[in-house]
Amino acid sequence: MVRMASQVNPPRGMRDFLPADKAKREHAFSVIKRVYRDHGFDEIETPVVEDHARLHAGLGGDNEKLSFSILKRGLGAEALAAAAETGDAEQLADLGLRFDLTVPLSRFYASHRAELPPVFRSIQMGPVWRAERPQKGRYRQFVQVDIDVIGEAGLLAEVELLSATSRVFAELGLTGCVFRVNDRRILFGLLDHCGFAPETHDRALIIVDKLDKIGAEGVIGELRELDPEAAERLGAVLAAVEPRLAGDGIPLTAEAISAVLPAGAAAEGVANLAEIGAALEGVLPEGVELRFDPTLVRGMGYYTGTIFEVAHPGSGSSVGGGGRYDGMIGRFLGQDVPAVGSSIGFERIVDLIELPASTGPEAVALVHDADAAPADLASLKAALVARGHRVRLERRQKNMKTLLARVAEQGFTRFANVRAGERDVDALELRELSA
Amino acid sequence: MVRMASQVNPPRGMRDFLPADKAKREHAFSVIKRVYRDHGFDEIETPVVEDHARLHAGLGGDNEKLSFSILKRGLGAEALAAAAETGDAEQLADLGLRFDLTVPLSRFYASHRAELPPVFRSIQMGPVWRAERPQKGRYRQFVQVDIDVIGEAGLLAEVELLSATSRVFAELGLTGCVFRVNDRRILFGLLDHCGFAPETHDRALIIVDKLDKIGAEGVIGELRELDPEAAERLGAVLAAVEPRLAGDGIPLTAEAISAVLPAGAAAEGVANLAEIGAALEGVLPEGVELRFDPTLVRGMGYYTGTIFEVAHPGSGSSVGGGGRYDGMIGRFLGQDVPAVGSSIGFERIVDLIELPASTGPEAVALVHDADAAPADLASLKAALVARGHRVRLERRQKNMKTLLARVAEQGFTRFANVRAGERDVDALELRELSA
Repeated sequence: MVRMASQVNPPRGMRDFLPADKAKREHAFSVIKRVYRDHGFDEIETPVVEDHARLHAGLGGDNEKLSFSILKRGLGAEALAAAAETGDAEQLADLGLRFDLTVPLSRFYASHRAELPPVFRSIQMGPVWRAERPQKGRYRQFVQVDIDVIGEAGLLAEVELLSATSRVFAELGLTGCVFRVNDRRILFGLLDHCGFAPETHDRALIIVDKLDKIGAEGVIGELRELDPEAAERLGAVLAAVEPRLAGDGIPLTAEAISAVLPAGAAAEGVANLAEIGAALEGVLPEGVELRFDPTLVRGMGYYTGTIFEVAHPGSGSSVGGGGRYDGMIGRFLGQDVPAVGSSIGFERIVDLIELPASTGPEAVALVHDADAAPADLASLKAALVARGHRVRLERRQKNMKTLLARVAEQGFTRFANVRAGERDVDALELRELSA
Repeated sequence: MVRMASQVNPPRGMRDFLPADKAKREHAFSVIKRVYRDHGFDEIETPVVEDHARLHAGLGGDNEKLSFSILKRGLGAEALAAAAETGDAEQLADLGLRFDLTVPLSRFYASHRAELPPVFRSIQMGPVWRAERPQKGRYRQFVQVDIDVIGEAGLLAEVELLSATSRVFAELGLTGCVFRVNDRRILFGLLDHCGFAPETHDRALIIVDKLDKIGAEGVIGELRELDPEAAERLGAVLAAVEPRLAGDGIPLTAEAISAVLPAGAAAEGVANLAEIGAALEGVLPEGVELRFDPTLVRGMGYYTGTIFEVAHPGSGSSVGGGGRYDGMIGRFLGQDVPAVGSSIGFERIVDLIELPASTGPEAVALVHDADAAPADLASLKAALVARGHRVRLERRQKNMKTLLARVAEQGFTRFANVRAGERDVDALELRELSA
C-alpha cells in the first residue's frame, strides 16, 4: 500500500520548520501582530486559494506566471481532449494558490466593503506561493506580512503606516533601519524635467530601477537609447545625488529634498514627502532613520505616490517596503479607492532576529525513572504547570549529559530528578540547567 | 485588463475572516498554543503542499479522494495528449494540498527523526483542504489542531495528551466537556467474545460506528447479516450498557468498566483504561468528565489502542478526539513507531467560545477634526501607544453615534475628541464608550 519512499523531503523549494525555527517565527508573528494592532490595524484572513481567472486578471505582474494552478475536479475525457488540442494546460484549472496578498485583498475589499469602516486598516499575515527556481533565501512557499490603509487619500495614511512599521522593526530588536522614501511623482517630474517624453517614462523607470545592479554609468548608458540628451541631464542629477546617498543620506525635509532636485521639479511630490517627514519627527523610534532617495523606484508599476523601502545593515536586500497605490484596490469594485500598503520581508527578518529569553516562570524538565508511576508524573506536571511553568517529562537515560544538553537547547532552564514514588511537588529540587 | 467581475466571493466552500472573526480565531490559537506548550509540546510546521504520490499512498482513507491536486508546471502537448489518452487527469499533477496533518507529520518524522528527541511531542495548527460538498459548518478550507506524542509506547503518552487537551478546553472556557474513552482492543475483544469471526471484525466495527445514526436496533439488524447469533449476544451487551451511557455514564475505573463487559473480555484494554483513569484523577480540570464508552469506534482504521472523543453540551458532534495509532507514523520510515494523537475540532469550538474582554490598558479611539495636522495626530497616537493603549484614529463624521457604536463594537472602550491644534496627550479626556 505504501511506497517505501526513499525521498522524504518537503516538496522542492519548500521547508519544514522544526521547533526552534517555528518558535522564532511565532515570536516574530506575535510582535508584528501586537504592534500593528496597537496602532489600530485589524487582522483579516482570506483563503489561500482564489479563482484562477481572478489570479490572472493582470494585477499580479510577473508573479502571475509563477503561480501554481489547481486541477479542476471531476475532469472528463472531453476536457482533457480539449486541453490536449489547444496545448493549454491552464484550461484544466479553476483555482490557484495566491502569489501575493494584494490580489486577495482587492477581492476581499470588493466583497466586504459594506461591512468595513470608511478607513480600513488591515493586517494580513500568511503564506504565498511562487514557482521560482529554488535558490538560497528564495522559497516556493514563503510568508508575507502586509498592512494596508484603505480609504484614506491624505498623507495621514502614510504617516500611520510608517510609524507603525518602524515600531515593528524596533520591537523586533532590529536597530539601524533606514527607511528610504521617494514619491513616484518626483520620479516622473524628474524625467519630465530632464526631457524624457511621457511615453518613455515607464521604460526609463525600469532602467533607473537597475541602479543597484548596473551602477549609474550603466543606467545612463541604457537611458541614452531612449533619449541621449535627457539621459545626460538625468546623469548630472544622479552624479550630484550619489555622494549624498553614499554618505549620511538626505533628510526628509523640504530644504534637503529641494536642494538635490532641479529647481521647481515635482513640487507636489516634494511637499508630500516633506510633510510626511515633519509629521514623523519625534514619532519614529530611536535608531530608525528616514531618508529621501530620488533613485528609489520599486518594481511594481501600480504605485501612484509615496514609495519606500527599508534597509537594514544585516541584510543585503531590503527588509520591507511599500507605497501608495490608489488605482488598484478598487479594481474588482470598478472604482478608484485610495490605498497605501507596507510589506515586511518576513523570511529575511526572521534570519536577523534572536528569540528572546522567556520571561515569567522558568521551563522545567522533569527527569524521571522509567518505573515512575504515570499518575505521579501527571500530578507533579500538572502542579508545576498550574504554577505557570512550561514542563517537559523526560525519561532518565544513561547519558544524562546528552539529555540535559538537549533540553537546555530547547529553552528549559531548570530540571528536577523524579524518583519512583515521588508525589510531592514541593519536595522537588529545581536545579539550574546551563545552556 | 481586469474583468469587472460580478462575483467577488471567495472560492466555493471557503471563507474570508473579517476582523471580529479573525480576532476570535487568533485568541483560540493563542490559548491552545500556550497550554500545549506549557505541557511540553513543541510547535512545528510543514508546507501546505505535499508530493501527489505521498498524499495518495493510502494513509488518508477516504480523504484522499477529496484532495485538491496541483497542475505540474510547464506541461507540454505530449503530457496533455497522454492524459487525454488515459482519461486520468491526476497524471497531470505532481503536488497536492494536504487533506489532514497526519500524512505530513509522518513525512516530517521520517525526514527529521535524527534531529528530534526520543519522545517527540508535536503541535501542528494549520489549514487543510477537502473538496467536500459545501454545507452548513463544513468547509473546503478548515483548520486542524493536532498534538501527537511520538515514541512513547506506554500509557504516559495518553495521560499527557488527555491532561493537556482537557486543560485546553477548560482555558477556552468550554466547561462541561465529557471525554468518552474506549480501547480498540476492548472492541475487538468484545466482538471475539460474542463470536464474530476475526475476518468480520472490521466490517462489524463500521456498523457499530453507526450507532448514533441508526440506533441499537439498526446496528444489531445490520450485524445479523454478518453473524445472527453473535449479533444477538452483542445486542445484549449494548442493551445493558445503553441506559448507563444515557445516564451519568460509566467512570473510567476497572470496577465500573468490568461491570458492563462480559467477564474476562479484553483484559488488556480494560487494564489500560483503568490505569489512564487513575492517573488522570485529580489532574483533570474542574468541569471535565472522563467516561468509558464501549460503543465508541472512531472512524479511521489505523487506531490500535486507546481511542477517545470529546463531547460538549453546546455542540451536536464531537469537538475533539484521537487515540493511539502505533502502526502509522513510521510508515514512510519503514518501521513501527508508537504514537498517540489528539485533534481539536477547531471550527466547532470557535463557534462556541467568546472573545474575552482584553485586560491591560484600554483601547482608545481618537476622534479628530478633518483639519487636525497629521503631525499632531501621529504624536498623540504614538504617546498613547507607548503607554500600552491600542489606538485608532477616526475622522469626525456627521453621525457621531454611528461612529462611536462602530468603534465600540470593535472592542474600543474609550474615545477622546481631538481638536485641530491639540498636541498634549495629557490634555485629552478619555471618555467611556459603552458597547
